[in-house]
Amino acid sequence: MMKPMINQEIYNLINDSMHIALAVHTNPDGDAIGACTALALVLEKMGKKPIILMKDIPDKYNFIHGKELIYDEYPDNLPLELFIALDCGDKERIGEYISIFDTAKITINIDHHITNPKYADYNLVNSNASSTCEIIYELIKDWGLSLDKEIASSLYTGIAFDTGGFKHNNTSSFTHKIIADLLTYNINFTDIMNKLFFSRSLSATKLLAYALNKMELYQNNQLSICTLDKKELEKFDAKNFDTEGIISFMKNTEGVLIACLLYEKSENEIKVSFRSSDNIDISVIAQIFGGGGHKKAAGCTINKTIIEAKDEVINTILKELF
Amino acid sequence: MMKPMINQEIYNLINDSMHIALAVHTNPDGDAIGACTALALVLEKMGKKPIILMKDIPDKYNFIHGKELIYDEYPDNLPLELFIALDCGDKERIGEYISIFDTAKITINIDHHITNPKYADYNLVNSNASSTCEIIYELIKDWGLSLDKEIASSLYTGIAFDTGGFKHNNTSSFTHKIIADLLTYNINFTDIMNKLFFSRSLSATKLLAYALNKMELYQNNQLSICTLDKKELEKFDAKNFDTEGIISFMKNTEGVLIACLLYEKSENEIKVSFRSSDNIDISVIAQIFGGGGHKKAAGCTINKTIIEAKDEVINTILKELF
Repeated sequence: MMKPMINQEIYNLINDSMHIALAVHTNPDGDAIGACTALALVLEKMGKKPIILMKDIPDKYNFIHGKELIYDEYPDNLPLELFIALDCGDKERIGEYISIFDTAKITINIDHHITNPKYADYNLVNSNASSTCEIIYELIKDWGLSLDKEIASSLYTGIAFDTGGFKHNNTSSFTHKIIADLLTYNINFTDIMNKLFFSRSLSATKLLAYALNKMELYQNNQLSICTLDKKELEKFDAKNFDTEGIISFMKNTEGVLIACLLYEKSENEIKVSFRSSDNIDISVIAQIFGGGGHKKAAGCTINKTIIEAKDEVINTILKELF
Repeated sequence: MMKPMINQEIYNLINDSMHIALAVHTNPDGDAIGACTALALVLEKMGKKPIILMKDIPDKYNFIHGKELIYDEYPDNLPLELFIALDCGDKERIGEYISIFDTAKITINIDHHITNPKYADYNLVNSNASSTCEIIYELIKDWGLSLDKEIASSLYTGIAFDTGGFKHNNTSSFTHKIIADLLTYNINFTDIMNKLFFSRSLSATKLLAYALNKMELYQNNQLSICTLDKKELEKFDAKNFDTEGIISFMKNTEGVLIACLLYEKSENEIKVSFRSSDNIDISVIAQIFGGGGHKKAAGCTINKTIIEAKDEVINTILKELF
């Protein structure tokens, strides 16, 4: 297979630069964190001075290597020759670092989101890749550079995260081939998988138990609904709680086709998450309430009380989908 | 690498036979079910008449192919030339079919348990393999036979199950290479992973919520204990409930080093499961109560009331391990 020209162009741009900024999307997830640390560690090995611009990294990623390259802001005393945006589906996702992107001499956009509008000077967008980390892996191989345990750990983190532990249908045969290679670097994948998907704080465990116990079922158990108001969330000390960890449980209950989790972010600001299985397009419901998303995972905000929001959501789902 | 001679010997034995029985261990799990159906489907393609002897298959494996080859008993009217035991760490694990094993002309033992005493006429025991399915995959390749979607689905099921979804440290680089190959057969791995690890009945979901809510913590949250008495289990209609699904949650709570789940099987018959992390050898505790197991996963039965059993377990753990 022909190697894409853009791979070599990116290599040349990096090779011709010294001071390089890397940024990911706001509220960085496993793929964003894995991709920027892996690439920064590679750049360091190439003799470059990479600066990762990133904030709000969840505690569970404490194990990641390359942390010493992460900064809140680009250092005043350093020049900047090249800006690489990673895993940002559009330019706005770069968040507060967008002003640095806009003033950078040369910009690169490396991403796997199909809707990416190719907003940089150089764009490597591959929507067949499970994750941005899969693209970074290909680049490293294509450039003829070698991996090490730290880089392999970061890449594993991103690929495992974005594939839901090799479960989602973005996982390909090629994904597993990459993982087979990464495992030769003696990485602690058991620990990474546990941290990504299985560890929960005590309060998160108790909140999950509470939510599953409270969950209500409608339409012969096909529709599962749970509401969590501000008081309840405060009781479990759940400020930035893991909605995914609760709603995926609701959806994986036998017979459930649609799961819906409503929580009160502030007074009359109800965040609603939807999940569906089979061929139910739940984004239709989110759109009715001014939200959006994918066919099987969508969300919206409803500015009512949580009781009113719940009733409206149930009625709308029953009317539109049953 | 030299192909092991035993692979060819097994091929010759199969080739020279027509009526072949396959059996797995009692209370078959994903690897046992995957291995026997995969091999039986291969034997059928070779023009043989395989009979799988297997009972008590959990409902969640309904998706598996080759089900039409599963029998409760070996048919009276059929001769039997060859008996293949799969995933049976010792002969006793064959259970009620041991009498057929004993009367079979030729017996084969294919397994991955390191303690396997090689109890058959021909023994293929590879403790480096993650699963018996990994060994079956190697055999099929070694024999020069081709896979298909149904066989690949069975093999994926067994490998995914025994590696805990590619998470346990028995997962190797070779394991992922096999999975990369299996995915080229267009198998529905998302569905298999969901069925193996994420789907729960409504009563199992409610029991999990109940147990996590009831869970008590000792020693600065390092020891997690939960008891479920007969009345509680009956309330959740939990006859053969998934202890693993509860205790793994207890152990994955942040800070917990030891998890212990006690349930009342019958009056004064308390089943105790232990899990530990880091370097804590929890089998020591199980052994004190006449049980056993592995370093990080062990169990025992205590013939007392559940309250007495709980107190004894806590006191013993505190005395021995803290």
